Amino acid sequence: MLLAIDARLHYALDRPAELLLAIEVAQTPDQRLVQDLLTTWGTGPLVPIEAEDGIGQRTWTSADDRFEVQYTATVEVSRAAPDLLALDTDPLPLLPPTVVRYLWPSRYCESDRFESWVNRRFGGLQGGALVAALDAYVGETMRYVPGASNGTTTAADSFIQREGVCRDYAHLLIALVRAAGIPARIVGAYGLGVDPPDFHAVVEVWLSGGWHLIDATRLAPVEGIVRVGVGRDATDVAFLSIFGSAQFVGQSVSVRRLDG
Amino acid sequence: MLLAIDARLHYALDRPAELLLAIEVAQTPDQRLVQDLLTTWGTGPLVPIEAEDGIGQRTWTSADDRFEVQYTATVEVSRAAPDLLALDTDPLPLLPPTVVRYLWPSRYCESDRFESWVNRRFGGLQGGALVAALDAYVGETMRYVPGASNGTTTAADSFIQREGVCRDYAHLLIALVRAAGIPARIVGAYGLGVDPPDFHAVVEVWLSGGWHLIDATRLAPVEGIVRVGVGRDATDVAFLSIFGSAQFVGQSVSVRRLDG
Amino acid sequence: MLLAIDARLHYALDRPAELLLAIEVAQTPDQRLVQDLLTTWGTGPLVPIEAEDGIGQRTWTSADDRFEVQYTATVEVSRAAPDLLALDTDPLPLLPPTVVRYLWPSRYCESDRFESWVNRRFGGLQGGALVAALDAYVGETMRYVPGASNGTTTAADSFIQREGVCRDYAHLLIALVRAAGIPARIVGAYGLGVDPPDFHAVVEVWLSGGWHLIDATRLAPVEGIVRVGVGRDATDVAFLSIFGSAQFVGQSVSVRRLDG
Amino acid sequence: MLLAIDARLHYALDRPAELLLAIEVAQTPDQRLVQDLLTTWGTGPLVPIEAEDGIGQRTWTSADDRFEVQYTATVEVSRAAPDLLALDTDPLPLLPPTVVRYLWPSRYCESDRFESWVNRRFGGLQGGALVAALDAYVGETMRYVPGASNGTTTAADSFIQREGVCRDYAHLLIALVRAAGIPARIVGAYGLGVDPPDFHAVVEVWLSGGWHLIDATRLAPVEGIVRVGVGRDATDVAFLSIFGSAQFVGQSVSVRRLDG
Repeated sequence: MLLAIDARLHYALDRPAELLLAIEVAQTPDQRLVQDLLTTWGTGPLVPIEAEDGIGQRTWTSADDRFEVQYTATVEVSRAAPDLLALDTDPLPLLPPTVVRYLWPSRYCESDRFESWVNRRFGGLQGGALVAALDAYVGETMRYVPGASNGTTTAADSFIQREGVCRDYAHLLIALVRAAGIPARIVGAYGLGVDPPDFHAVVEVWLSGGWHLIDATRLAPVEGIVRVGVGRDATDVAFLSIFGSAQFVGQSVSVRRLDG
Repeated sequence: MLLAIDARLHYALDRPAELLLAIEVAQTPDQRLVQDLLTTWGTGPLVPIEAEDGIGQRTWTSADDRFEVQYTATVEVSRAAPDLLALDTDPLPLLPPTVVRYLWPSRYCESDRFESWVNRRFGGLQGGALVAALDAYVGETMRYVPGASNGTTTAADSFIQREGVCRDYAHLLIALVRAAGIPARIVGAYGLGVDPPDFHAVVEVWLSGGWHLIDATRLAPVEGIVRVGVGRDATDVAFLSIFGSAQFVGQSVSVRRLDG
Repeated sequence: MLLAIDARLHYALDRPAELLLAIEVAQTPDQRLVQDLLTTWGTGPLVPIEAEDGIGQRTWTSADDRFEVQYTATVEVSRAAPDLLALDTDPLPLLPPTVVRYLWPSRYCESDRFESWVNRRFGGLQGGALVAALDAYVGETMRYVPGASNGTTTAADSFIQREGVCRDYAHLLIALVRAAGIPARIVGAYGLGVDPPDFHAVVEVWLSGGWHLIDATRLAPVEGIVRVGVGRDATDVAFLSIFGSAQFVGQSVSVRRLDG
Repeated sequence: MLLAIDARLHYALDRPAELLLAIEVAQTPDQRLVQDLLTTWGTGPLVPIEAEDGIGQRTWTSADDRFEVQYTATVEVSRAAPDLLALDTDPLPLLPPTVVRYLWPSRYCESDRFESWVNRRFGGLQGGALVAALDAYVGETMRYVPGASNGTTTAADSFIQREGVCRDYAHLLIALVRAAGIPARIVGAYGLGVDPPDFHAVVEVWLSGGWHLIDATRLAPVEGIVRVGVGRDATDVAFLSIFGSAQFVGQSVSVRRLDG
């Protein structure tokens, strides 16, 4: 699937600040970046750095009183939905060292609090079948309600409130998968069909020796998801970190299909 | 049902402390206190005071280095299980003023966090039928596991961990009932059949102009529950509050049936 | 001091809802209500009920699609600032039964978490001198910043963030005072000089056999505070509780001095 | 300084489980591992893997019903205390990509909640002088009390309770340093002079292009600290992770000086 991405951010600053952007599309085997362009107004020099797990990049910049950025990209995505039932759990000692950290609880994914219940309720399942059951559980339990959560909402909160946005779906699925002893990480992304249009967040689980992509919200088709970066939870994939004080002026995100 | 209660507490103190006991059986229309006796060793004078909502009493005392108490009571309980399906919600403006506070969230019963979900999932029900459904939900969801929770566990925690003891069952049911806009309070109690033997905690809900008793754990029969006191949550019905520093030495609680 | 109060609330409702108002001035020995008037538009009948501890009243009403209320009052306040250093702690067993509950932690005032530190840092003080030191500590520690907190902020949160509004000052002072074993309650109030104008919240501590008023924010003079109601924390003195769903349209609060 | 380390762990298992050990000394420029030996009883094969940031290693193993391990090492430590006042903050865009993650809040170090207060109170300082002031603040504020905290205690909790162990000191200092926009990570360690003897936890801050070691507890001299591994907080440096259910039988840690 060939996709055109257009994202714009606009902030006003009280005083000079440094900023870290994480909005650029990652080059990975299943998503080929045809072309992209990052344009900024009112900013200092752009300094790109490698992001978590060597996937994608972030870009440092600075601004005095206003910060405006436009990012456009064309991406070719070739990816099949994972056949979860055909995938299996890897023996823990065979996990790559950099995957081990995705077994642990993290700030927004308190997997340790869910262990007892997950093992009791889903104890008869394992591997991909277990992940599929947890994913189905999240889909049945949660309701997509923009505005129902905020930047401090955790998986435990979402499990109680049972409504939220892509970030909350991702956190809850990650927490449940880790509670079952299977590595899971968040993916900051663009998603075709996300409505209202916004940055997207999905999940990757480690099964049968590789990472497999799951959109717990079902909003985007599997080939309509474009990775920006990965991490333990939303902490690691914030699309903009401001080291200072800023006011939001505007934002738009657009993902369009170019072929078919 | 005629019940014999025997409770003993034993603590060692580092330095003189004041203590507030809430272990004496309340005299209420459905439980007649035939006789009771509070005996203490190593304590100063006993000062009884009225407890929350005028139900039961607490007793102040003090101790220097050790604190030991035995309480024995004989109680006649005459009470039928509430027919929840025949009970209805009172219009809010007709609630007695002292009942209104049991609509609010409290420290261990964060009912506001459950409102959205309760109204969505149980929205088709009301009054006693709604309470019965929430009670059934708690019974199906929770598993009775002594040691799985502690004194800081809240209803939200229990909703995630899905195991705990009577206190946790009570807190979760109270939180769900209040989330539905129906008053609910905790009852510190003795319960026949609680195993391992311990102080018990149950729930009262306000329907059709009165309080109705529910044991969310199902451990004790309806006539096997003996009220000590009531309140918003465990904060108000702690069987012992120590204003100072003490070490637990021992405790026993026994509830036996004398008739039948 | 003679004060004129004018408070207005305006909400739009999605569907019929019941509402509980707590905005009317309480009649107490140190504040004489000269006259007041509660006017509503778009509401059903008004049903006043007694509020917590028999101080002041709340009023139930209902509305279909909009809710608008104006409350005006003239109040004569005669009150001296408490001479805290001359006041002492009452022996716990001599506390009136209805005061005991103000020793416990509550949802927004987690006094148990502060006990160890309060006793260590302020352990050489007691009675009114201890309360005065805790009050001074709150004043030095906190900064008044409207918008820095929200309705879920607790005393523990404020102790970390160290900024907030009257509600946060009150919660923190209450938590510290209770941690020292002294009863403290919140007072929902009107306050002369609160800027930006809003409902106010202050503290009462129990010393030498009575409740004594303290404005931890120092925004209002002691005779410029007019009690509406009391309770354990903000839960009990919310000026408006809506049993349903509503949008805020507007609000204004004005307190003016008529004499002098 | 030449140090001899001896650590032993003993657990009983209910059923076969996988285990991840993080107790082996890391080989780094300032600590030369002369020799070490990991001996286990009742376990399956040992599978070492690289740990976070390529510092040190963890070892996977498995056990059926009991798990016992002894680790002995001889280490030569050559390290000077950092002269914090001579160190400066690096411009954010010049941070190595793998250091950026140590700017973010993490589960046990909620640095975002401290930002406002840290910037207000310590705003006149920067770089190493700021870190030194934060370190002094933690030392003055906290009291070392074994048993006062547990495995779920966070920096925010410790800031309120103001007592705890090395883990809590480290979390609080990390949270404050990150709140000031300076990278900080936890170091799982052995420490000479830790009393009662136990595993130790210290802090590294990123200043002037490198990591600098700080023991917020002051329990161990700078050459008496031996790194095991690093990470965002205690989550990443747990000395033992059990994927299953186990009972603690016993543990001992000994660090002795061999020279001088």
